[in-house]
Amino acid sequence: MAIIEGRTGLELLKPAACWQLLASQQVGRVGVVAGGQPEILPVNYAVDGRSVVFRTDKGLKQVAVQSGAPVAFEIDAIDSDTRTGWSVLVKGRAERVTDAATLRRLRALPLDPWAQGEKAHWIRIVPRDVSGRRIVRATTTA
Amino acid sequence: MAIIEGRTGLELLKPAACWQLLASQQVGRVGVVAGGQPEILPVNYAVDGRSVVFRTDKGLKQVAVQSGAPVAFEIDAIDSDTRTGWSVLVKGRAERVTDAATLRRLRALPLDPWAQGEKAHWIRIVPRDVSGRRIVRATTTA
Repeated sequence: MAIIEGRTGLELLKPAACWQLLASQQVGRVGVVAGGQPEILPVNYAVDGRSVVFRTDKGLKQVAVQSGAPVAFEIDAIDSDTRTGWSVLVKGRAERVTDAATLRRLRALPLDPWAQGEKAHWIRIVPRDVSGRRIVRATTTA
Repeated sequence: MAIIEGRTGLELLKPAACWQLLASQQVGRVGVVAGGQPEILPVNYAVDGRSVVFRTDKGLKQVAVQSGAPVAFEIDAIDSDTRTGWSVLVKGRAERVTDAATLRRLRALPLDPWAQGEKAHWIRIVPRDVSGRRIVRATTTA
């Protein structure tokens, strides 16, 4: 049975549904805080177990997601015609992956960044909270 | 002439191009920091002059974007087939709109939230920095 959030009328997605949606997409958005200022950056990503992994280089993302920094990760799908959509939000901490065996496994994942650049660093988002919402249309009665 | 970022090979978009893209979309993502943790929330929005406005109610977004809080706003378009896309990021501060004349003007904007809820509060994102990037495909030579 669908759980509807009273305040917004949005359907709340269960964690299993959120992970299914996360596994179905290739591009998401990482939210980081750099110098007190939030930033949102699109990334190619993959799901590894119950975590999100992405590659980055020595740019802002790598700096801002070091040392267990709090991060957010969001995916969504929006349909302007039907004015419906869904979104999934992962809140957690970033973790640089350095273990050789883990890196071998991650390199086999279908994660091939579209943008150029070395992107030698692998970052894992260790989730503390995963939530999802879907806009459900009210049925029009005749 | 296009400006290409050396590290990533991405085309950097000029502010005028960013505002043109912002004016062309209806749904974006607000990045806020709540208790030290970044969050990303999809919103319906409109452009008012050189700022982004959206409506919210007394939920998290309203709490997190009060009192000149630093916020981010992101839009993007992703094409999985061609593996191309673009994104625009606005960094700035949130400002609750309370002036009656301004509210009248904002209510006339094409901003009709898809989700239910009163959403009585209007928030303006006053930009400090607007940037955009486009993934350009390298031309394949025969």
